[in-house]
Amino acid sequence: MAYNAVETITRKRDGGKLSDDQIRWLIDAYTKGAIADEQMSALAMAVYFQGLDDRELSTWMNAMIASGDSMSFKGLGRFAVDKHSTGGVGDKITLILAPLVAACGAAVPQLSGRGLGHTGGTLDKMEAISGWRADLTDAEMRAQLSDIGAVICAAGAGLCPADKKLYALRDVTGTVESIPLICASIMSKKIAEGASGLVLDVKVGSGAFMKTPERARELATRMVGLGKAAGVATVALLTDMSTPLGLTAGNALEVAEAVEVLAGGGPQDVIDITLALAREMLAMAGIAEDPAVVLASGQAMDVWRAMVRAQGGDPDAPLPVAAHCQDVIADTDGYVTSLDALAVGVASWRLGAGRARKEDPVQAGAGVKLHAKPGDRVAKGDALMTLYTDTPQRFTDALDALAGAVVIGDTPVAPRPMVIERIA
Amino acid sequence: MAYNAVETITRKRDGGKLSDDQIRWLIDAYTKGAIADEQMSALAMAVYFQGLDDRELSTWMNAMIASGDSMSFKGLGRFAVDKHSTGGVGDKITLILAPLVAACGAAVPQLSGRGLGHTGGTLDKMEAISGWRADLTDAEMRAQLSDIGAVICAAGAGLCPADKKLYALRDVTGTVESIPLICASIMSKKIAEGASGLVLDVKVGSGAFMKTPERARELATRMVGLGKAAGVATVALLTDMSTPLGLTAGNALEVAEAVEVLAGGGPQDVIDITLALAREMLAMAGIAEDPAVVLASGQAMDVWRAMVRAQGGDPDAPLPVAAHCQDVIADTDGYVTSLDALAVGVASWRLGAGRARKEDPVQAGAGVKLHAKPGDRVAKGDALMTLYTDTPQRFTDALDALAGAVVIGDTPVAPRPMVIERIA
Repeated sequence: MAYNAVETITRKRDGGKLSDDQIRWLIDAYTKGAIADEQMSALAMAVYFQGLDDRELSTWMNAMIASGDSMSFKGLGRFAVDKHSTGGVGDKITLILAPLVAACGAAVPQLSGRGLGHTGGTLDKMEAISGWRADLTDAEMRAQLSDIGAVICAAGAGLCPADKKLYALRDVTGTVESIPLICASIMSKKIAEGASGLVLDVKVGSGAFMKTPERARELATRMVGLGKAAGVATVALLTDMSTPLGLTAGNALEVAEAVEVLAGGGPQDVIDITLALAREMLAMAGIAEDPAVVLASGQAMDVWRAMVRAQGGDPDAPLPVAAHCQDVIADTDGYVTSLDALAVGVASWRLGAGRARKEDPVQAGAGVKLHAKPGDRVAKGDALMTLYTDTPQRFTDALDALAGAVVIGDTPVAPRPMVIERIA
Repeated sequence: MAYNAVETITRKRDGGKLSDDQIRWLIDAYTKGAIADEQMSALAMAVYFQGLDDRELSTWMNAMIASGDSMSFKGLGRFAVDKHSTGGVGDKITLILAPLVAACGAAVPQLSGRGLGHTGGTLDKMEAISGWRADLTDAEMRAQLSDIGAVICAAGAGLCPADKKLYALRDVTGTVESIPLICASIMSKKIAEGASGLVLDVKVGSGAFMKTPERARELATRMVGLGKAAGVATVALLTDMSTPLGLTAGNALEVAEAVEVLAGGGPQDVIDITLALAREMLAMAGIAEDPAVVLASGQAMDVWRAMVRAQGGDPDAPLPVAAHCQDVIADTDGYVTSLDALAVGVASWRLGAGRARKEDPVQAGAGVKLHAKPGDRVAKGDALMTLYTDTPQRFTDALDALAGAVVIGDTPVAPRPMVIERIA
């Protein structure tokens, strides 16, 4: 049945509900070009104001899944479990988590994206490794999952074309920040990818998309509901993103830090979140292994090396280093009381680690290395962080982004708990 | 200064105010194509929800005026005064009012449009007159205003191109029903047209764009404010559009009825509204003539005949008559208690008097002639109305639109006052 585009827009605008058939028609017609971009953006803005109820959202998500291919990991002999992060600064968790959970016995298909804006993309990070390639055929991906247990690769073009088109439109029309549209976008891809379990890392704080626990909780609750309704075991952890994760932001810098954790070292906040997510994934898979023990054993590092090699990468090759660096110096003695995640993310982006437009290249070596985090004592003249770039004219803009980002006070602050809340 | 389109959209979306420079940039960039349709439609939807305050609205309107040409009627030797109707069913007032006010001594430049949807367009009505042409050069228009005092013609393409582009976009994106955007659209054109006085006929009721007095009052108040701020004497009358105006809806049918009023006859509601609007226009022009006396004297008819002839029309040529007609019969005795304007408008549209798309032709003879109005007594078997069309297969759809449109009861109802409120 064909509906009328203007009537569909005005119904939502006026607070009405769209029928299931109407939503299916809408997504299908938009994907085929029968509904114009200017109509879909007006509708997306109406959804921003009027929302979608659970039925509408579920139908919307399923229509986006139906717009393209779906994958299945049945018959692998391993329980397939996936993780999604809503994006943060210094978020290299996937690089550690995927081989760790695979080393424990699950299959971890991490279909990932490139970065846009101040949060980095997992593929951009992996591409800092010499020779590594993101594009695998479905057969290569299945074989790697079966043999090694973990794969990080680009999502195929056939997955959720409706979401690709709609996301690109929302990005230029001020309609990204709609919780139901975010839920539908994330969950349609994750469900089309075919994992049997899904753990959501919903970041909260200045460096995250959701700035407040209330918004993050709403997003998490609706995504968990969508996942369960689609028959996928789904749990969300709300995790802190007020300050960067670990001590690095930037592609090669983050790979090096992830390898440090796989080698048994690395910053405690990165380890804590990785283990918390791993425990959720293993519980879904019915695997009793303790991921802390497996991490300490070096088995996760073995899987990492195998998965890098399987995709043409050399795990022993030196990582790219930026041609220029510059320190940011403490101008007083005291304790770091806050270090703003967004400011560091924007600085890293401006140094060349991120892109402003989809077609921009990224610098593998660019980014920020932190030498102090909230709670640490610093002395006047200490380096608080080091900025890296191949294009030194970028330092000025990066420093602008960092103005006021580090607060030094007289009394130490306790580090924040990384996992704020669990939503199941 | 250049602004960012997405930041402009999200600022309005989040309830912020746009600066004057930002609004000027927006309208200019949209007119030039530097802001995409999908961005402008999202912004229009954000304006639908968040509104524009008086400063924003005034700047928006002035930016639309500045996007094209402006006219001026200074030096004509007559006070130029204009009327705008928000559109209704059977609204042929302009055809009588323009020659009447000109006959009293003012100049009446009525730049008009074609109809879309259930309300007719003044140019469509005039084009039912054999030979009459809507397109005049500016010089022809000025000469006719100076010599005859009244002109009804198409607005030039150079007037408010930003409004033309934005209106076409709003029409397909469910963003027409925003009071500030309606105000800006109407008032930008009227002020660019250069009259020194403007009377607004804001219709209220089922056949009007504004269904309630509250919405109509808000629209009228903001338009009057915009006009005055731009130095144009502006008054609005809220007039009833719950039932069609006069006894006809359709192009040639309405011309015939207008000529009847110019000849001293015609329905009382049409006469009442025409005189009320004429009195407002004459007061602005400082002209003391009584329009009722001038109408009765036949001088308005003389101006009508002259203005039709000046644009190539033959005022004595017989008007087109539709090839087919069909009566709608009363199924009971009683009094007509209501006769729905929207239903009659839609029926007339479906019979061929209106168009669904801009490029559709209209039938000059199609429409509806009413034989009874609210308050009239009818007997079972009487014709309540006659439907006219050149394409008899349209009768079924027209009759569908009229289902329940005429209510016949046991007790007579008093006719409603035509002028509900005056806003100055």
